[in-house]
Amino acid sequence: MESPLALTTEQQNEVEAARNSHNETRRPTVSALEEIMHAVHPVLDHGFIRVVDYMGDDCAIVQAARVSYGRGTRRTSEDAGLLRYLMRNRHSTPFEMCEIKYHVKLPIFVARQWIRHRTANVNEYSARYSILDREFHIPRREHLAAQSTTNRQGRGAVLEGSEAAQVLQLLTTDAERNYDHYLEMLNEHPDGSPIDPDRQGLARELARMNLTLNTFTQWYWKIDLHNLFHFLSLRADPHAQYEIRVYADTMLAIVRQWVPLACAAFEEYRLNAATFSATMLGVLRRMLAGEVVTQETSGLNKREWNEFQSTLKAPT
Amino acid sequence: MESPLALTTEQQNEVEAARNSHNETRRPTVSALEEIMHAVHPVLDHGFIRVVDYMGDDCAIVQAARVSYGRGTRRTSEDAGLLRYLMRNRHSTPFEMCEIKYHVKLPIFVARQWIRHRTANVNEYSARYSILDREFHIPRREHLAAQSTTNRQGRGAVLEGSEAAQVLQLLTTDAERNYDHYLEMLNEHPDGSPIDPDRQGLARELARMNLTLNTFTQWYWKIDLHNLFHFLSLRADPHAQYEIRVYADTMLAIVRQWVPLACAAFEEYRLNAATFSATMLGVLRRMLAGEVVTQETSGLNKREWNEFQSTLKAPT
Amino acid sequence: MESPLALTTEQQNEVEAARNSHNETRRPTVSALEEIMHAVHPVLDHGFIRVVDYMGDDCAIVQAARVSYGRGTRRTSEDAGLLRYLMRNRHSTPFEMCEIKYHVKLPIFVARQWIRHRTANVNEYSARYSILDREFHIPRREHLAAQSTTNRQGRGAVLEGSEAAQVLQLLTTDAERNYDHYLEMLNEHPDGSPIDPDRQGLARELARMNLTLNTFTQWYWKIDLHNLFHFLSLRADPHAQYEIRVYADTMLAIVRQWVPLACAAFEEYRLNAATFSATMLGVLRRMLAGEVVTQETSGLNKREWNEFQSTLKAPT
Amino acid sequence: MESPLALTTEQQNEVEAARNSHNETRRPTVSALEEIMHAVHPVLDHGFIRVVDYMGDDCAIVQAARVSYGRGTRRTSEDAGLLRYLMRNRHSTPFEMCEIKYHVKLPIFVARQWIRHRTANVNEYSARYSILDREFHIPRREHLAAQSTTNRQGRGAVLEGSEAAQVLQLLTTDAERNYDHYLEMLNEHPDGSPIDPDRQGLARELARMNLTLNTFTQWYWKIDLHNLFHFLSLRADPHAQYEIRVYADTMLAIVRQWVPLACAAFEEYRLNAATFSATMLGVLRRMLAGEVVTQETSGLNKREWNEFQSTLKAPT
Repeated sequence: MESPLALTTEQQNEVEAARNSHNETRRPTVSALEEIMHAVHPVLDHGFIRVVDYMGDDCAIVQAARVSYGRGTRRTSEDAGLLRYLMRNRHSTPFEMCEIKYHVKLPIFVARQWIRHRTANVNEYSARYSILDREFHIPRREHLAAQSTTNRQGRGAVLEGSEAAQVLQLLTTDAERNYDHYLEMLNEHPDGSPIDPDRQGLARELARMNLTLNTFTQWYWKIDLHNLFHFLSLRADPHAQYEIRVYADTMLAIVRQWVPLACAAFEEYRLNAATFSATMLGVLRRMLAGEVVTQETSGLNKREWNEFQSTLKAPT
Repeated sequence: MESPLALTTEQQNEVEAARNSHNETRRPTVSALEEIMHAVHPVLDHGFIRVVDYMGDDCAIVQAARVSYGRGTRRTSEDAGLLRYLMRNRHSTPFEMCEIKYHVKLPIFVARQWIRHRTANVNEYSARYSILDREFHIPRREHLAAQSTTNRQGRGAVLEGSEAAQVLQLLTTDAERNYDHYLEMLNEHPDGSPIDPDRQGLARELARMNLTLNTFTQWYWKIDLHNLFHFLSLRADPHAQYEIRVYADTMLAIVRQWVPLACAAFEEYRLNAATFSATMLGVLRRMLAGEVVTQETSGLNKREWNEFQSTLKAPT
Repeated sequence: MESPLALTTEQQNEVEAARNSHNETRRPTVSALEEIMHAVHPVLDHGFIRVVDYMGDDCAIVQAARVSYGRGTRRTSEDAGLLRYLMRNRHSTPFEMCEIKYHVKLPIFVARQWIRHRTANVNEYSARYSILDREFHIPRREHLAAQSTTNRQGRGAVLEGSEAAQVLQLLTTDAERNYDHYLEMLNEHPDGSPIDPDRQGLARELARMNLTLNTFTQWYWKIDLHNLFHFLSLRADPHAQYEIRVYADTMLAIVRQWVPLACAAFEEYRLNAATFSATMLGVLRRMLAGEVVTQETSGLNKREWNEFQSTLKAPT
Repeated sequence: MESPLALTTEQQNEVEAARNSHNETRRPTVSALEEIMHAVHPVLDHGFIRVVDYMGDDCAIVQAARVSYGRGTRRTSEDAGLLRYLMRNRHSTPFEMCEIKYHVKLPIFVARQWIRHRTANVNEYSARYSILDREFHIPRREHLAAQSTTNRQGRGAVLEGSEAAQVLQLLTTDAERNYDHYLEMLNEHPDGSPIDPDRQGLARELARMNLTLNTFTQWYWKIDLHNLFHFLSLRADPHAQYEIRVYADTMLAIVRQWVPLACAAFEEYRLNAATFSATMLGVLRRMLAGEVVTQETSGLNKREWNEFQSTLKAPT
């Protein structure tokens, strides 16, 4: 948890009421996931992830793959074997039979990356209709990285000396000033009363354009397990931007609770697996036959050669 | 129910076991839907629909639209009003927050129409892997319609005299013979034992090509409520082919149990609503102003004029 | 055109080169669309829309509906009739057989609404990789509307007196200051040279969070005609926010050039059509039978009654 | 070409007319693809694939990735490098910027597998509206494989002796008889005249249910390049059923003509690449360090061990 969340009393009561509800159902349930349902998992300084609903479990994937009439009487080891088989052979449709619905609070610049995953359902808090909260993401000092000198879309070392302090000061004062001016244009005090009863107040759908991209928004986001795995394979990856990766990591931890067998198969065959190109496979065969292969004799360019070497050497 | 279904004892036991499961959950539940969960709803002669899972209820749609922290404390009348507002103004994303999963048994020619709805998840019983059941759809005599003489893709009157008897006889004997030959090519008795131990048996993925299009298949089919409404608006429509419409009607009855407020809004604003073209609107305004408009003075062609008249006169 | 666009000389040369290319093809072409290909259509103060590619024409829709071997020898009047029939009866798949690809420059808050249409392909200019241009949307004075007092997500009258001037001043100075600080955090002059050779410069993926939501971005956006019609039916609608509606209006004008018959059918049966609910249809029938119906006797609430009245009276 | 196609004179004329059209366009064109446009590529005994339209080329992918104003002045080697980079790093959206539209004739049982790829547009010849041709797929003798004894959804050796002859005879006579009965129920001669003027004829939407699954249907099918690559990676794979693989192989050959650089990247990094699981990577590292690893010490089950071995040894 990076910092305490400021839920209002009303919001806390709503969360508590949801957690206290106990209903009987003929649907499959997952105890470990029920345990954390509705609870707030803090992410970044003001963000969070909450599971608000789910459908299915490991067994539901197996049932769909078999188009069976019930939950079957097979052993867990058989189910695990089938789930591994399905994942290994890219039989993706059975994994689409599970769904999860999250309530997420996140900075707008993260939301803009996130929404690129189109095979999901989303309802975002409307700034045409309502006023956004006074919450902005300000990175922690250890995440204030310099532009990478080798990768045009990556980060390098952490900023040194006074540069970090200046960045934090600019981000903070600009976000706050712009939010103050947002309220001023709306002609609204934080409590909703007008600042100046003689002014009309700018339409919300216009005033919002003054906000900075680190302002927090929130949404309900629902996705099936196959597409969630795809999201996680891209966003829980070291190449993903840190500020979205922390959301992916939180969701991955939740998925492990929800569908432990399917998630283990995902980590084995996708997340921690590696793909070798046709040329790399050729090099591998030569190496296994005892040949010493160098970048020059490999047919790989330097970048690919380095990736190849690090995959072969480093623990993933 | 058109005819008794022939579930095996094992299948019946699986269904019963599923119906007898009672789990505790923090998720919203819908009693009326829980009541019929897993139960077999017969459709056509050998088909059925079973609800095997669901996510969300009327309130979940409202929650998503409001991006709220809990189920809120608002009155049912307010929720109904919001659901009607969302449906009327084509705010479709909150309806995507509910999902339902069906187990369906249906003839292949119906499955081919059904699958055209792409925004759904499906796992079909694999005839590459398994052997299909000996079940074919033979229409009831009152559904043996002649080709329409006015609509190239519609039905006319019911077949008369001996023609119907001949059709039924051809459909039945051809389906049975082709299925017998399917088993013969597979070299399998219905119990799985080989017909001739000296033959190899044709691969299942090839033998299936001999089956007729009225052979039953089955699948798990999962869809969100918005896309289900879209499916129902097309397939529960009088222009849809009867053999798929009976499935849509069964699903519509289930949806009424599941999300009664959302479904009422759907029926009011979509299923039983009518759209008038720009020209029709002009005609309507002239009629309301007291003018007597005829097809000739309407600007509508005969077909549209007839549709317009029947919408204005007939109860939908 | 609201204001001159500031394309660089290099960009202008690229556009000119694209416009000067003339290739021979066996594909169908549309002269009216070829005429405006690659050309810049200004939208808002710094935005634009350019057609960069397209596939298909009116005839291609007809061909797909008929699954024909060639372009056929039927008359245009028959094609128009079929297109109208398809549109009226919601046979949407033939319209999916045409595609158009636009290059669009637009403010980020508009891009966030736009991207909600998921059935499209998009490549956005990456602010992780590159530096955004110093361009922000500042509304024209006549578009500075007050919050509507009757519709929580609408606009009311134009701001009066000094309020408008203050809003314009705040929007302008905040956007400029935040952009200045963006460059300062990046440690880059507009020409790419470092401001201070001793500083490292913040990573681009972080610095962008200081930008305001009216900063312009750009993307390649490709969509099929059916989904474009859906986009236009929602975004060229009077209820859409003005700042996205001007983009929709520009695209609609282009579609009229591209597929005139299909677009006429869309305007007749969708854009300028009206849907009446089941209750409204009942009221309509009573009115046409001579009964005087009031809101009280209609069964409609006030809001629906007003919508119903305005549809019946106003020219759409 | 397995056998001559029986196009009618009218169909041949339509194809010829399409091939003879020459239009001028400002869009990018691909000479090698223009060369084969509209031409019929035979597949199986009565099927075919024809390119009827396309959008984009290798350069269009690069343009979209760069969100550029024109086609740029960069060298081909740079474009090839970028395309390889995009493919390697799973940046899939630029590949979505190209589209291709095929006219395909294929057996219904193949169509049922094919349609499972949902991210595509399709218009199928309607057997509710029209009468299907008298064409069925009968496998060539060398493709009449027995059921695999080791893989429940695979093929084994080719059928021997009289078993193949019997299968061919059953498939042929059943398909022909069922088609004869289809026409008889429709009460139509092949030329469309009634068999018996006193009969009504069964509705087309019903009569079709008597047809066998090897009857040919046809459709227009349009897909973007990213999703086509996904289709090809699954269907041009040795595990795919032969009868759909021949269509995939034909499309792959066409894609090589259309976007040679992108297709080479696809073959290098996807089609001919291999993915190693986390456990396999561990084994690989031990092997490269000189350890002799056996299945027993590998942590892999037999099936995975065999796959691993064959990937390392066989040329892909």
